[in-house]
Amino acid sequence: MGDSFEAQATRQLDGLFRDMAPVRAMQAAITGFEDDRLHLHAPLAANVNDKGSAFGGSLASLMTLAGWGLVVLGLQRGGHDAEVFVADSRVHYRRPLHSMLQAQAELAHGETWEPFLSTLGRRGRARIRLQARILLPEGGVAADMTARYVAIARG
Amino acid sequence: MGDSFEAQATRQLDGLFRDMAPVRAMQAAITGFEDDRLHLHAPLAANVNDKGSAFGGSLASLMTLAGWGLVVLGLQRGGHDAEVFVADSRVHYRRPLHSMLQAQAELAHGETWEPFLSTLGRRGRARIRLQARILLPEGGVAADMTARYVAIARG
Repeated sequence: MGDSFEAQATRQLDGLFRDMAPVRAMQAAITGFEDDRLHLHAPLAANVNDKGSAFGGSLASLMTLAGWGLVVLGLQRGGHDAEVFVADSRVHYRRPLHSMLQAQAELAHGETWEPFLSTLGRRGRARIRLQARILLPEGGVAADMTARYVAIARG
Repeated sequence: MGDSFEAQATRQLDGLFRDMAPVRAMQAAITGFEDDRLHLHAPLAANVNDKGSAFGGSLASLMTLAGWGLVVLGLQRGGHDAEVFVADSRVHYRRPLHSMLQAQAELAHGETWEPFLSTLGRRGRARIRLQARILLPEGGVAADMTARYVAIARG
């Protein structure tokens, strides 16, 4: 038995992350990809504000990255070669976070991969809606996001 | 003649920025504060994605920071001692940016400082709505944001 798709693809995505200076600076890393949900984390120290809690910009940035990574993985699994861009996002900041940033991204309620991938195949361009959140260690969320991403076929 | 309020306050804000690890990592700095508009910039190299353009997370983060800084300055000018938190935001990513990130933040259309400051004085807590954008060097915007910030009086 070789590596699972998940193990190979997340290793590759981790490589992409390490190639991006702002992602290296946040020290963001993948902690899991299962049940169509991508988990990232990043240490508080690299993402802290003037009040000793997580910087709002870092929360938004980590959720944006988690969503981007999920779309990249979904495209790879579907055998598509495409570039992924965030199109728009809406973030609610709910509670201050005083510990490690833990983000998860998944498809938005009611979204599925199939129409996104088939539209991309047909038109060379497609959009998909995701949701992401930053978890609080005590339960609940520090912030949540809904966002749309665009994939554009390469070549 | 001593320093203007603007010069003193932006120097102090630049100090706050430098105390925050994620802001240092973005290399964000203030380039101006005039006509109630705060200007920041950050080099592309520290904020680049896998495609050689500005990382969406960095655009969101710089606009969030610009808005936060504008509220901090508005409070200082009004003589208020309060902590500022971003409450929610909505970002549209319009065009890829291949050069230095230039952000500006100002009050949202129709907002004024007075009711925000007087509510804060009376209730110890108030909200204000801002808009921010990332400029393209050729004109137009790479991204824009509307966001609400909450100020909570200290002590």
